[in-house]
Amino acid sequence: MKHYIGIDLGGTFIKGGIVNELGEIVISDKTPTEVEKGDLGVAANIARLAKDLLDRAGLTTGDVEGLGIGSPGMIDSAEGNVVYANNLGWENFRICDEISRLLGGIPVKIGNDANVAALGEVKFGAARNYNSAIMITLGTGVGGGIVVDGKLIEGNKGAGAELGHIVIVRGGEQCSCGRRGCFEAYSSATALIRDTRRAMEAHPDSKMWEIGSTDAVTGKTVFDYAPTDVYAKEVLDSYIEHLACGLINYANIFRPEVILLGGGVCAQGDNLIVPLQAIMDREIYAGSKGPRVPILIAELENSAGLLGAAALLM
Amino acid sequence: MKHYIGIDLGGTFIKGGIVNELGEIVISDKTPTEVEKGDLGVAANIARLAKDLLDRAGLTTGDVEGLGIGSPGMIDSAEGNVVYANNLGWENFRICDEISRLLGGIPVKIGNDANVAALGEVKFGAARNYNSAIMITLGTGVGGGIVVDGKLIEGNKGAGAELGHIVIVRGGEQCSCGRRGCFEAYSSATALIRDTRRAMEAHPDSKMWEIGSTDAVTGKTVFDYAPTDVYAKEVLDSYIEHLACGLINYANIFRPEVILLGGGVCAQGDNLIVPLQAIMDREIYAGSKGPRVPILIAELENSAGLLGAAALLM
Repeated sequence: MKHYIGIDLGGTFIKGGIVNELGEIVISDKTPTEVEKGDLGVAANIARLAKDLLDRAGLTTGDVEGLGIGSPGMIDSAEGNVVYANNLGWENFRICDEISRLLGGIPVKIGNDANVAALGEVKFGAARNYNSAIMITLGTGVGGGIVVDGKLIEGNKGAGAELGHIVIVRGGEQCSCGRRGCFEAYSSATALIRDTRRAMEAHPDSKMWEIGSTDAVTGKTVFDYAPTDVYAKEVLDSYIEHLACGLINYANIFRPEVILLGGGVCAQGDNLIVPLQAIMDREIYAGSKGPRVPILIAELENSAGLLGAAALLM
Repeated sequence: MKHYIGIDLGGTFIKGGIVNELGEIVISDKTPTEVEKGDLGVAANIARLAKDLLDRAGLTTGDVEGLGIGSPGMIDSAEGNVVYANNLGWENFRICDEISRLLGGIPVKIGNDANVAALGEVKFGAARNYNSAIMITLGTGVGGGIVVDGKLIEGNKGAGAELGHIVIVRGGEQCSCGRRGCFEAYSSATALIRDTRRAMEAHPDSKMWEIGSTDAVTGKTVFDYAPTDVYAKEVLDSYIEHLACGLINYANIFRPEVILLGGGVCAQGDNLIVPLQAIMDREIYAGSKGPRVPILIAELENSAGLLGAAALLM
């Protein structure tokens, strides 16, 4: 049985695990990132965590195929280089060379965290029966990953797969990227909360005011009130239509075997997926002449990053 | 020197050529498609053209690496199958097996014509110094091809790369695909002509009326009049802004090494490319932190299909 070390690098914690070729996490743990120690300091923390996990599993560096890292930022995976990572404060840090040096020369690979999570879902999660998938994560922003024939499409210097940043409503809502009308500005949890608050403020008679104030709005509010409040229903319908619009764009570009959705909003399950799939089936290019694109909810949650990082070496 | 047969299959003519590994067309010719003879009849015409070209070049089937076809429609390249081609009247025709049988068992590959043209440009045309490119062809519709690491991304059953069919203006102009506001509905030559006519009809004082009537409008009209007619300038500016919007979407998704534009509008050269590139550089995700995406004009014109078809075997 082959083993791999997976590392999920975040701004606060480094999560690590030893993963076998079946995608089982043999052992896992976490340690503070300590961004203030700089790039070499963080790399040392990653290596220390990896060694500790190996020790506890009764393994040595010679027993694993290598170490994979999911990292925030713009990652040049071919060069093993963090080109730019705002929340780590790094620019052009060749992390793979450094960690390999600290771990006896084992192979080390890296990818952007959203991309790596998509790879994890394709290898071991909701898309494990497929080779090609687009994953869209609906969080504070909208992140994404592209897997074609089992491989990540990351773009030149890893700067691609910014799947939240396609304009779907020209001149529309301001997006964090500087453009207006991006998919993210309509489909993120942030956007859903913004639109829920706007609806409450515009309609003092909305039942949604039962929650007390607009400060109490979450991504769940409109789902809770849609069955009984017309204003909640309007916000939810609009959210689903914009989300479907972006997903169909990706279906027409990639015609993936499957589209995966991740993020907190997915806890709504069929209330989200059923109407999305209906719009997809109706509006996808060439309708039923081409293969259907099922929309599924991602499964791996917090372990997607760790498993996907390990999968970089598979 | 290796040789290949390239076939550009159209609804009216089959164009064929023998191409060497440098992308030089040794000999080429065309023959009527004769769609009315059905799928097997057309396949026989392709095989006959291929044999004739080989004879005239003093070669036999044993002297070539294989035959590649660029075909309209939805093409499952892995299966060598034309899944659906409206203007040939075909459904599920396993053309590669048939042509290989007629040509002594040589390898035969097929791809969608827009995809194959993109591959031709990457191997031998404007993107020959790059491995990854998005090609967008601005014609009656908007076609496209995706090349990553020298390989086409075609989607499940070849149904992807419908790059004209992403919504950029939700609820906007009606598109031929059934949705509203697609990139194609703003950036095709058809859309440019539509908007030029609308501007003339709305403004009887436009200098564009010098052309006589709205029937005389072409994709060139607004370029000719933009320097002297404010209404022409408005249409042109809007055309370029919408085109840039779609191109930046593709830059953010793929971060390709280069974007190629094809189609008649590209005869405008710098009048088109310079303003597009300025918007791209300003609005692409993360601005200058990521690698620049240059916009180039495709070079191969009518031979892109033939060269790209040959390149399917390289």
